[in-house]
Amino acid sequence: MKYLWSILLVALLVVNVNQSEADCGYAACHETKPNMVNIHLVPHSHDDVGWLKTVDQYFYGHKNNVQHAGVQYILDTVISELVKDPKRRFIQVETAFFNKWWVEQPETSKQIVTKLVNEGRLEFTGGSWSMNDEAAVNYQSVIDQYSLGLKFLENTFGACARPRVGWQIDPFGHSREQASLYAQMGYDGEFFSRMDHNDKDTRMENLSLEMVWEASESLNDDAKLFTGLLYTYYWETPGFCFDVHCSDDPIIDGDSYDNNVKSRVDDFIAYAKKVAAFFRTNHIMIPMGGDFQYEDAEVNFKNMDKLIKYINERQSEGSNYNIFYSTPACYLNSVHEGLMTYPNKTQDFFPYGSDTNSFWTGYFTSRPTQKRFERDGNHMLQVAKQLSTFANLTSDKQNEDLEYLRRIMGVMQHHDAITGTEKQHVSDDYDRLLHDAIVGAQNNAIDGLRKLTNLPTGEFESCMQLNISVCAFTKDSADNVVVTLFNPLAHTSTEYVRIPVKEESYQVTDEKGRVVASEVLPVAWQVLALEYRSNDTQHELVFKASVDKIASYFIKKVDSGDSAVRALPKKSKAAFTSNKDIASNQVNMVETYDDNDSGETVVENSLIKLVIDNKTGRLKTVSMNGVSESIEQKFAVYKTKDSGAYAFRSNGDVEEVDDEVEFTVYEGALVKEVHQHVNEWISQVIRIYEGINRVEFEWLIGPIPTDEETAREIVTLFKSGISSNGVFYTDTNGREMLKREKNKRESFEADLNQQPISGNYYPVTSRIALQDGNKRLAILTDRAQGGSSINNGELELMLHRRLIRDDGYGVDEVLSEEKFGTPLIARGKVFLILNVADAKATAAERVEEKQIHLPYWKFFSKSSSVSSSAVPLETPDFNDFPNSVHLLTLEPFSDDEILFRVENFMDHNEGKAVSFNIRSIFDTLGGLEIRETTLDGNLPLSEMKRFKFHQDGAGVSPSTPEYYTASHKPLAVEKSQDVDDFSVTLKPMQIRTFIIKRE
Amino acid sequence: MKYLWSILLVALLVVNVNQSEADCGYAACHETKPNMVNIHLVPHSHDDVGWLKTVDQYFYGHKNNVQHAGVQYILDTVISELVKDPKRRFIQVETAFFNKWWVEQPETSKQIVTKLVNEGRLEFTGGSWSMNDEAAVNYQSVIDQYSLGLKFLENTFGACARPRVGWQIDPFGHSREQASLYAQMGYDGEFFSRMDHNDKDTRMENLSLEMVWEASESLNDDAKLFTGLLYTYYWETPGFCFDVHCSDDPIIDGDSYDNNVKSRVDDFIAYAKKVAAFFRTNHIMIPMGGDFQYEDAEVNFKNMDKLIKYINERQSEGSNYNIFYSTPACYLNSVHEGLMTYPNKTQDFFPYGSDTNSFWTGYFTSRPTQKRFERDGNHMLQVAKQLSTFANLTSDKQNEDLEYLRRIMGVMQHHDAITGTEKQHVSDDYDRLLHDAIVGAQNNAIDGLRKLTNLPTGEFESCMQLNISVCAFTKDSADNVVVTLFNPLAHTSTEYVRIPVKEESYQVTDEKGRVVASEVLPVAWQVLALEYRSNDTQHELVFKASVDKIASYFIKKVDSGDSAVRALPKKSKAAFTSNKDIASNQVNMVETYDDNDSGETVVENSLIKLVIDNKTGRLKTVSMNGVSESIEQKFAVYKTKDSGAYAFRSNGDVEEVDDEVEFTVYEGALVKEVHQHVNEWISQVIRIYEGINRVEFEWLIGPIPTDEETAREIVTLFKSGISSNGVFYTDTNGREMLKREKNKRESFEADLNQQPISGNYYPVTSRIALQDGNKRLAILTDRAQGGSSINNGELELMLHRRLIRDDGYGVDEVLSEEKFGTPLIARGKVFLILNVADAKATAAERVEEKQIHLPYWKFFSKSSSVSSSAVPLETPDFNDFPNSVHLLTLEPFSDDEILFRVENFMDHNEGKAVSFNIRSIFDTLGGLEIRETTLDGNLPLSEMKRFKFHQDGAGVSPSTPEYYTASHKPLAVEKSQDVDDFSVTLKPMQIRTFIIKRE
Repeated sequence: MKYLWSILLVALLVVNVNQSEADCGYAACHETKPNMVNIHLVPHSHDDVGWLKTVDQYFYGHKNNVQHAGVQYILDTVISELVKDPKRRFIQVETAFFNKWWVEQPETSKQIVTKLVNEGRLEFTGGSWSMNDEAAVNYQSVIDQYSLGLKFLENTFGACARPRVGWQIDPFGHSREQASLYAQMGYDGEFFSRMDHNDKDTRMENLSLEMVWEASESLNDDAKLFTGLLYTYYWETPGFCFDVHCSDDPIIDGDSYDNNVKSRVDDFIAYAKKVAAFFRTNHIMIPMGGDFQYEDAEVNFKNMDKLIKYINERQSEGSNYNIFYSTPACYLNSVHEGLMTYPNKTQDFFPYGSDTNSFWTGYFTSRPTQKRFERDGNHMLQVAKQLSTFANLTSDKQNEDLEYLRRIMGVMQHHDAITGTEKQHVSDDYDRLLHDAIVGAQNNAIDGLRKLTNLPTGEFESCMQLNISVCAFTKDSADNVVVTLFNPLAHTSTEYVRIPVKEESYQVTDEKGRVVASEVLPVAWQVLALEYRSNDTQHELVFKASVDKIASYFIKKVDSGDSAVRALPKKSKAAFTSNKDIASNQVNMVETYDDNDSGETVVENSLIKLVIDNKTGRLKTVSMNGVSESIEQKFAVYKTKDSGAYAFRSNGDVEEVDDEVEFTVYEGALVKEVHQHVNEWISQVIRIYEGINRVEFEWLIGPIPTDEETAREIVTLFKSGISSNGVFYTDTNGREMLKREKNKRESFEADLNQQPISGNYYPVTSRIALQDGNKRLAILTDRAQGGSSINNGELELMLHRRLIRDDGYGVDEVLSEEKFGTPLIARGKVFLILNVADAKATAAERVEEKQIHLPYWKFFSKSSSVSSSAVPLETPDFNDFPNSVHLLTLEPFSDDEILFRVENFMDHNEGKAVSFNIRSIFDTLGGLEIRETTLDGNLPLSEMKRFKFHQDGAGVSPSTPEYYTASHKPLAVEKSQDVDDFSVTLKPMQIRTFIIKRE
Repeated sequence: MKYLWSILLVALLVVNVNQSEADCGYAACHETKPNMVNIHLVPHSHDDVGWLKTVDQYFYGHKNNVQHAGVQYILDTVISELVKDPKRRFIQVETAFFNKWWVEQPETSKQIVTKLVNEGRLEFTGGSWSMNDEAAVNYQSVIDQYSLGLKFLENTFGACARPRVGWQIDPFGHSREQASLYAQMGYDGEFFSRMDHNDKDTRMENLSLEMVWEASESLNDDAKLFTGLLYTYYWETPGFCFDVHCSDDPIIDGDSYDNNVKSRVDDFIAYAKKVAAFFRTNHIMIPMGGDFQYEDAEVNFKNMDKLIKYINERQSEGSNYNIFYSTPACYLNSVHEGLMTYPNKTQDFFPYGSDTNSFWTGYFTSRPTQKRFERDGNHMLQVAKQLSTFANLTSDKQNEDLEYLRRIMGVMQHHDAITGTEKQHVSDDYDRLLHDAIVGAQNNAIDGLRKLTNLPTGEFESCMQLNISVCAFTKDSADNVVVTLFNPLAHTSTEYVRIPVKEESYQVTDEKGRVVASEVLPVAWQVLALEYRSNDTQHELVFKASVDKIASYFIKKVDSGDSAVRALPKKSKAAFTSNKDIASNQVNMVETYDDNDSGETVVENSLIKLVIDNKTGRLKTVSMNGVSESIEQKFAVYKTKDSGAYAFRSNGDVEEVDDEVEFTVYEGALVKEVHQHVNEWISQVIRIYEGINRVEFEWLIGPIPTDEETAREIVTLFKSGISSNGVFYTDTNGREMLKREKNKRESFEADLNQQPISGNYYPVTSRIALQDGNKRLAILTDRAQGGSSINNGELELMLHRRLIRDDGYGVDEVLSEEKFGTPLIARGKVFLILNVADAKATAAERVEEKQIHLPYWKFFSKSSSVSSSAVPLETPDFNDFPNSVHLLTLEPFSDDEILFRVENFMDHNEGKAVSFNIRSIFDTLGGLEIRETTLDGNLPLSEMKRFKFHQDGAGVSPSTPEYYTASHKPLAVEKSQDVDDFSVTLKPMQIRTFIIKRE
């Protein structure tokens, strides 16, 4: 085969010798006709990076009985078809698949594809590793997976491969942050196809299916992005699916009884006419493709060729429809040249209602443990990136391990991965991939630690089961353990560390040998009750640490005299003996209440005071930050039937769990915990740490009972007296905040009669809040969840779901997860902050948000041969950064380059532009030069030039196309330059990305 | 696209410049390994020329919701894949589809394909227009469709395209005549895949899945053919369907968690090992394909490439399995070189029992009117061929019209066309195609007639509705009609002509103006009762004609004195007035019987005497040829439930229709008819003509009643006293006869417990007979039917079927035909001959068979301006041929060539070799040279060299491969040569084929 490919290549090269590389991009767009309706026919395939099948199953065409799809064949046959005719076009979207295919290609095939890319015949669109979800993802991971995809394209093909438009055609609702990130990466626009049906209807009436999205209140022009909705989803024109897996009529143009050219052309033109009526220019975009189409690309292209031929032949009879192969970028270019003005858009596109009974808000919470595991993946990725950079790890194995986790995190962002909308076996495969990738990257982190800590024989390990308070390392070696903490944040961070231990006596010392105060607490009853949990560690050792970048703490078993203080049970309502015979030795030690006790229990430290109602066993009042508010926290259940992995469909109001809660209070000096036993399948620990200004609610839910008619979706509910008037706030992908107003939308009337609850649900990636003139209540999360404020003063977050139906959007499985043979039990945390209602409060929340998102990573090793005087090698010190500056990324970029990304995480209300100097960082990293790039790291910022679209009502329309370039002077400095040249200013919410060339 | 194809072509040509054309055929086979199991992997697609979809729907991939299949894409993508690697192979079978694709190709694509053919990478196998059925086809049409397909291949590609093996992989049983024809066309062997399961089991035990078929008792070596059964039907290895429409696992060889190379190779080798145990050489053939596979050939080839690679890689570890792309011809070549001996086979492979309850014998009769219409198509085709040749028609239109009917007749031979096993809409499309093709070819015939008859303004027409005694021409113009008769047989033929007329007075004269005796008879009551029949012609005019090649008769309305004699009703049992008020004016004229009459009615002419039982109304005795025998003819019904279009599944014995039959006898001097009214949906006319030595039974059946639990399949039953001892005889495709013995098979025990009737059914294409030492009873048919002899002395033929179930073999429709809104009514004829039991009797049957198969074609024109002295132009006179010689084919072959085929239709028991001289024919046709070819007309007979296989027990095994060449000196003569050189000798059953080059 190679032999003939080479010939073909030679032939191609000979013929194309006069074509320069400038033929890619907009220069490669086919000519359009000014006085006609120009139909941009866009061949594409939508290839989910896992959904009904795993990534590899999709790639190889494995398990075709589940779904017929084989991406390798799509790329094989598309390339063959593109070669046949230079007029043909195809867009490739998911770089995860393209990369997998590319590495299997022989050299000659690679040269052919390169040629096709250079001629704009194969055009990358979107271009990220996967087409990410927009509800459950954190912006850090989105940026990472765009950097990853675009870097692969840049390294493989150069500039011609750089995507110009976003192509988020399948995600179930669209975040403003995604648009903002696109703008910051220099994209010219974004297209998608799922929009609330009422919104779409309204926009069709108003000719506003295309708009200018003002995607950040802080970033202004830097975050404006042209955004368009596809007319008929991303699917082919109805009746014109020319795919091998479709059954629509082909174009029959031969001497056949069945010749259908006339009727087929009539039908297509009629459709084009209908579409054209809803758009402002004389251009329309008609995608030709769908899920995993083009597996037999010859079928598609042969018929599209005919369609184009016969539609254009009509022009000689006076038809004014002009059709040609195109790409989303070429369509956008035509629109840009059309010089029309467009309406603006300032909020986002959540929730997505596909009909009046179907708001896709269930997936905000679906598969809660997978959503959390993805956060662990990001956590390790950032840790490994920083450690690899600090230690300058460069072996192939090290590069591969780090790259593998980058890629798997790219996969996890996929809109059927982190969303929880895949089949169970695919979810299992994601878990496998992510687990393996974390283990691999952890090897890097450990290699880095070895170089940075000089711990000579330290065999570091992570404990992946800390979520169920299990760690084989501390179980077996608990008499001599080193806990090495890595802090991925820029600034020194203070955190309480929890280590599972047996019920013994321990002492904790720091690197200087100083004893560190510690306490031992029992593990919560429901965790202990887990059948699949090894029950060796029934307690946790807690101590407070403060870490710049790296610090080690030493734990050893000691006589009880020197040991950690045991936090003792103080009070308890009802004995826990009824629920497994655990902690029974403590039961008799505590004061108990009788059932009719109407008093209160106060749990209090220097910053926070909680009041528990003895009768209900629930939180009643919170006082902190000088504010006191009655806040009842309850669990509540939506008993549903027709909910699915995507859609949350309530049948009525939430049912609050009003059972009296049994509880035990443990009081230590460092930490105070209220262990609540809500019912057989819900428990919780409410926890406050000395010096930490938030209240932690560690919930544990499951196995959720269901029956044939009843699914259950569990929420945590915070009922306050704050007069929120239907207004609440949710974050967008963990960055900016959006104002939500119950039953209101930005620019249309939503029909919420059938689903008044679900239609008010929004994605909560990191934070939900409400306030009145005085008080503000914010809940921060440890993973993405759905949330809302259904009643004034109340916030709710959906924590876990176990369903009984599929919702008919393709998964064809009931979301009813099991682990170890029983319905899935999920554990997690939400964090409450009560404060005065001002910008200082929200600024404080942002700091907490970062700490929750990127806490220490804990490495364990044996302390046998370790000198407590070991000192880490030099790592850069980021403590000079202003407090609002986040070390967003620090990672190896190439053998001699580092990617360095900083963010001012305060918005324009919370802070101002901050300046700081990065010279010392630059030097510590061995920098020779530093250049600024677009957000993704691949395009020099000085070269960024992106479409500007005129907005409706913004004055006189332009007479020539307009562009944006960088709004500040891009940094570009060498080692020889003055320290002042290394000054960096970050406006509120601004992120700047640099490539540091090192020695 | 053309542009890039040309480059590719240039490249190919450059690279392949040193390769000569001798690389095709067996020389192109990949090398094998002597000490290994050689696995011949044979990529193929089985593309039905109509079945669930029409021919064009299959070609274009139209109506993919009915069945996903698009032949254009198969050929497109297969060619692309073959180009990629010279090791790849593909066989193309159905020339109907290949031709349709070829004509759409641009020149450059044609050159590429030619190259592939010349290098043996694309190999034609089978090669006929369609893969014909073997049960219902007449040998003349099989020869025609092979000639057609092979001629297209020869003209398009030359010798490299000539198929070497037959590939009858799907037909439902296999005829001996098919094998005989293959041998006569020079094929090296034949493969098929459907064999009775008991037969197959036995052959597996005996290592006799491959054999030497002695396919003619008369032709001996000239008809011996190697024949092999495919192991797993024609489908791919179980679990290894690498087609885009399959779901088997691909070969996953990448760095994937799902890598399955080891298990896939293990599984395939295990299968190969199993297969190899059943074959004699160290070669096995594994077809890779199935119905309409390879629509996305890249999927198939990519995975087969990997399979080959990894299986052969095992050889380095000691595996002795060697796998490579191959073709059936290459496999056969290896087998031939293997020098093993093979068992012989002398009978055929009917009926096909796929399991003990499923004998595929229903399709012998399914769609009886379509089976008859196909015979009309052949009839017109032979007429038009001869007339085109005689008149030397050469215009493009004329060539196209004739070619079109050749092609449509090729289509009709397909194993889902003439079999009646297609969906109804497909059957309708066949009718449309055949109707149009007959009308087109008829124009040729008429053009020819105009030149040959000198009838200046004669506007000839055919009457396509004579089967329901309707002819618009004779209805409207009946007072002045010329009937021009064309006799396609070699010898002058005598026939009674029947013309539908009104009840008027007519006179018939011949070309010399002489009055010809004629009679008028009423049309049978049930025909008249047809609601969709125009009722203008209630009578038929009958006269006797005798025609060499062409003769005209003139019909005019006259005063009653000069008119045709009216055959009067003589006797009747019961008045017909109860059944529609037709012919009522005659009812009172006849003698009637009362219900208890136990007497007889004798109907008799100079050759035949029939006795009707007055009580039953049925035939009781026949006397002819000096033999008298009690023969009762009855209709009988199989009430079935689980029968389908393919399988006839009786639930018990046949139920004879014992109702007393009402009848009327019409007696004329020329013709005598007994009109029988059997029941509301069965009637019959028993008819004898003066001077014609057979009894005609014209049956009319329908609408057949059915209900939810009861389908009905109708047979005609002839019960004689002949002691046949379970032995009977049926023809094989209208040529030789095979002996059948009830409950017996040639070489295995068939399990007939579940289906004792169906398992004894055989295809009757033209004749079924039984005999004892003295008497012989033969029934000849006008179309293909199923028949048997279930009880001694009895013959039955299934005439019509109306079913209530599908039999599960894919059609997924109930065979319950309707026309004009009512269940289909079918009309047809069977012919009885009673004779002494000797070879003279069977010889006489053969003559009748030819007359029934190719009677006169009747052309009608107006006589207004015609001189009765018009004389036809000279046509060759074939009357000098010996009586046993049939003018099998005479047709234009190219612009200056004629194909001429003669057959000695007596077998070795009935006649001897006959010689005759064709010089006068040659001269009349303007011959310059004549050369002899293989049966199909495309290979000079002198060049024929085909594999000979040594038979078990035939002495010492050969040490080198053996071959057959022509068994007589091929004729090759020029005009200048002596008349004696034009002598032709035909051994019994021999067919010889010549190409005459004309001026």
